[in-house]
Amino acid sequence: METTFAQPHYRPLVALISDFGESDYYVAAMKAVLLRHCAEATVVDVTHRVPPQDVRAGAILVERAVASFAAGTVHLAVVDPEVGTNRRILIVQIGGQVVLCPDNGLITWAARRIGGKIDYAELTWRPPQAPSSVFHGRDIMAPAAGMVAAGRAVGELSRPVSDPMLLDDLVPSVGRSGRVIYIDGFGNAVTNIPADTVRAVAGKNVHLGARGTCPLGRTYADVEPGEAVALIGSGDLMEIAVRNGSAATVLGVRVGDEVRIAG
Amino acid sequence: METTFAQPHYRPLVALISDFGESDYYVAAMKAVLLRHCAEATVVDVTHRVPPQDVRAGAILVERAVASFAAGTVHLAVVDPEVGTNRRILIVQIGGQVVLCPDNGLITWAARRIGGKIDYAELTWRPPQAPSSVFHGRDIMAPAAGMVAAGRAVGELSRPVSDPMLLDDLVPSVGRSGRVIYIDGFGNAVTNIPADTVRAVAGKNVHLGARGTCPLGRTYADVEPGEAVALIGSGDLMEIAVRNGSAATVLGVRVGDEVRIAG
Amino acid sequence: METTFAQPHYRPLVALISDFGESDYYVAAMKAVLLRHCAEATVVDVTHRVPPQDVRAGAILVERAVASFAAGTVHLAVVDPEVGTNRRILIVQIGGQVVLCPDNGLITWAARRIGGKIDYAELTWRPPQAPSSVFHGRDIMAPAAGMVAAGRAVGELSRPVSDPMLLDDLVPSVGRSGRVIYIDGFGNAVTNIPADTVRAVAGKNVHLGARGTCPLGRTYADVEPGEAVALIGSGDLMEIAVRNGSAATVLGVRVGDEVRIAG
Repeated sequence: METTFAQPHYRPLVALISDFGESDYYVAAMKAVLLRHCAEATVVDVTHRVPPQDVRAGAILVERAVASFAAGTVHLAVVDPEVGTNRRILIVQIGGQVVLCPDNGLITWAARRIGGKIDYAELTWRPPQAPSSVFHGRDIMAPAAGMVAAGRAVGELSRPVSDPMLLDDLVPSVGRSGRVIYIDGFGNAVTNIPADTVRAVAGKNVHLGARGTCPLGRTYADVEPGEAVALIGSGDLMEIAVRNGSAATVLGVRVGDEVRIAG
Repeated sequence: METTFAQPHYRPLVALISDFGESDYYVAAMKAVLLRHCAEATVVDVTHRVPPQDVRAGAILVERAVASFAAGTVHLAVVDPEVGTNRRILIVQIGGQVVLCPDNGLITWAARRIGGKIDYAELTWRPPQAPSSVFHGRDIMAPAAGMVAAGRAVGELSRPVSDPMLLDDLVPSVGRSGRVIYIDGFGNAVTNIPADTVRAVAGKNVHLGARGTCPLGRTYADVEPGEAVALIGSGDLMEIAVRNGSAATVLGVRVGDEVRIAG
Repeated sequence: METTFAQPHYRPLVALISDFGESDYYVAAMKAVLLRHCAEATVVDVTHRVPPQDVRAGAILVERAVASFAAGTVHLAVVDPEVGTNRRILIVQIGGQVVLCPDNGLITWAARRIGGKIDYAELTWRPPQAPSSVFHGRDIMAPAAGMVAAGRAVGELSRPVSDPMLLDDLVPSVGRSGRVIYIDGFGNAVTNIPADTVRAVAGKNVHLGARGTCPLGRTYADVEPGEAVALIGSGDLMEIAVRNGSAATVLGVRVGDEVRIAG
């Protein structure tokens, strides 16, 4: 089968992202299914603390996961408010890895930040028994991810599509102005300004609108404890941080806030 | 040895449930012991967020874990307020899987929801060194689970018993009336009304006592955001959910609340 | 190479401690790197809930991790407020295991509680590409841990040092007086009084300063629900607990509180 021949075989390494939290059996239910289809899989939790149904925050984490793992990794990302409707399920080949996720914008940030060829497909495989209407992560996506991790060709489970849903306003900035797109667990405010831009503009300060101004530094220790600093974060984006503290709490920065590197 | 011969050998797949939380070393201490006895084990956390010492909530999750995993899985469930007393430790063979847990009712919901033959035994194996009085999960149950995962016969570590402690009031409903038995991490209210009952009575609405009434639907998207719907959840029980919200918060439903499918 | 010859090869079992929390991709980023260097590694999370930048609490957990795991285990402990400065990174051989951590006191409690020979070294290995200034856990420590887990000799990555930073005031007590050094996730107050001391002094009661007095018992069930008891905890230290409750909440005990075993 031609499509099969042309496609890579993925590794038995599956990375999971969801908004399921850790207090229930939902994540384990997906892992149980993965391990039925690929008993030798190494399964890594990226996070299950995406804020409930927050596709935008999930999209940031999907990109971080793909950027972190080696070629061959299979990603399963489930933030799925429209489960049970006819929204599509995507299986995306990107950066030598594969991402399974609902077609609701979750792939946006990875699509825009990770280079190279991207192949979008719609998962057409369905389980022999009728799936639950409320848990496609377990009943449709996890079996498919397990099969791909076990060596099944993506092309056998899907058909190509060219119109994935992408979130219009989740884009990297192109100049010295951008905005906060994510608050991490330490309260650092991640912006959409790429590291290359930060280096190119050679600014000395960053304006945070009503939150004031902070210096552009290299690491947290460039400022005193409790003070704010802008720096290139571990995800190659400009972040606003407070040394030994939380920028979200201390400065009150929020997703959507505008930031600008001063000349 | 006759008993040994008659018993299955379990897989090196161990699923864990506890009320230990994730902020301490307690879960890792159990895993360290498991891996000493069965280095090749795949260990899956179901959850460690059972509310502290809440045997009833733990019992719901034990059933969900057994229902999720394949035959051969070894489950270790530790919600153990009476640790250090002479309460027994059970090793239960159910659905082709084995569950190790204190004999305090944790096995109740699995016993009543999962069909087939159930073999109850009391764990008689004890470690050569005196165990801690406060952490039998690590010192007695984890070694036993590791040994079973590594191929040791259950019969070599235990003796059959016929009187496991079961919680009298945690039973599936038999008619169109039931009650809330569990609130999940999304705030969905899981009832004790089995899916088959829901399908058989063909009701259109569900009465929630003082909380009002909601339609019986198929998936969250059957109602508008913020509205309540009753549906068959992923655990084959009727649940009360609020679309894009929490039934616990929005409706105030609680464990113990009565619910009734209207004709 | 002489150094290599003299050193043990570690197992592909890596235990992780950090203050990264579970809501971001940071832990997964470290695991991705570990698995690139040692694909067959079993990775166990001890906890990622060390309070942010709390080196003292992290030090208690590092000791617990080393005490829990078998010889050969590789530990990666990242609580690193001075990341990006010239603070050293340690690679410590202790109890037949290896611990990688910043040289900021994280190794203190393990050094003082675990017997035998301890070899301290400074990690001299650095990645070919410039590491991030904000995430040495991923860019320097995780690759080194992965290489050691994959069989690389510690001596090839480091040079011996004799002056690790140790926290002066985190020491086991020597008499019947001590202090609370850690509050666990159940609210139990762990003291620095070793189990052997507790057994030797044969006291009947424990004074908790302004918090009152409680009996010295063997297990939680030695007192009524809601009452306090001092006992030997799972870490072989005296703990103050409240049966079916939290000593931190009920008694108000805090890290630093003095405790004394009455004669």
